[in-house]
Amino acid sequence: MKELVGSPGTVSGLMLRIGQCGFAAAAIGAMTSAAGFSSYTAFCYLIASMGLQMLWSFGLACLDIYALRRKRDLQNPVLVSLFVVDLTLDNNWCNKFIVQNMQVTAMLSLAAACSSAGVVVLYAKDLNFCRPQNNLACHSFEVSVILAFITWLLIAVSSHVMFWILASV
Amino acid sequence: MKELVGSPGTVSGLMLRIGQCGFAAAAIGAMTSAAGFSSYTAFCYLIASMGLQMLWSFGLACLDIYALRRKRDLQNPVLVSLFVVDLTLDNNWCNKFIVQNMQVTAMLSLAAACSSAGVVVLYAKDLNFCRPQNNLACHSFEVSVILAFITWLLIAVSSHVMFWILASV
Repeated sequence: MKELVGSPGTVSGLMLRIGQCGFAAAAIGAMTSAAGFSSYTAFCYLIASMGLQMLWSFGLACLDIYALRRKRDLQNPVLVSLFVVDLTLDNNWCNKFIVQNMQVTAMLSLAAACSSAGVVVLYAKDLNFCRPQNNLACHSFEVSVILAFITWLLIAVSSHVMFWILASV
Repeated sequence: MKELVGSPGTVSGLMLRIGQCGFAAAAIGAMTSAAGFSSYTAFCYLIASMGLQMLWSFGLACLDIYALRRKRDLQNPVLVSLFVVDLTLDNNWCNKFIVQNMQVTAMLSLAAACSSAGVVVLYAKDLNFCRPQNNLACHSFEVSVILAFITWLLIAVSSHVMFWILASV
């Protein structure tokens, strides 16, 4: 099987997972630094979604480190499956489950980033509320949304790599 | 190959495509009936995205009708591929292309629905702007967002069916 950039158990895969985790943490940090974020449902959802993403990516990164240390070839679909569900299940079913799981995570992150972006664009562009006299932390909101989009992009790359691995098996 | 609900060239697939097209049209209708929608970037994006979706679904529905009339078995992956790209390309590559294309369309619809939902939730819940004296067409906005989410759900079903067809080839 040919090696794809970002496959499980490779250095590029580990970088991708660390990137996801880091950008998700940065998005949460930028959002929580903004005063009054908690009164916006979209921003609270962004924090919840990025928190979930951070934990999930951290778990995958730990498994990548473990795999790199043990020099195991995690591109073997049987071993990939072991990460998420147990051995007793059908292997092909497991692969599909992982890819769909990643697609769901990517979808949740996209939904969070987009709903927050909708609010930020409304404030910054449509209503022009981001003037200094309004005391809104627009800059922090914008940075957080951009970081959330970068996180989603990295998850989408992970998810597509998994899809190509599955499709090429 | 076993027949999946919503596969290309089946009656259920045709229903799915007509549903996508109809709900996208209804979302556009509900949004354009609301006064002042054009001053919101998120709502304009929703209309653009649903318009694109409507055309794409209409095209697929026409092909399904053609396939049903000609009694062709479009679950054959070679014939599925013919719908989108020409014969000269590698067939397996074509199938991946179609699935990824559907995923992109689904993603755009989700992004549009979520950004509009962010604005609607902000107005209706966080800021409590939807009182009668504000003259905002909140009800139309809400209906349009719900219809956009239903459209996205139908596209996601189509996209997943295509994914399973590809994965089971």
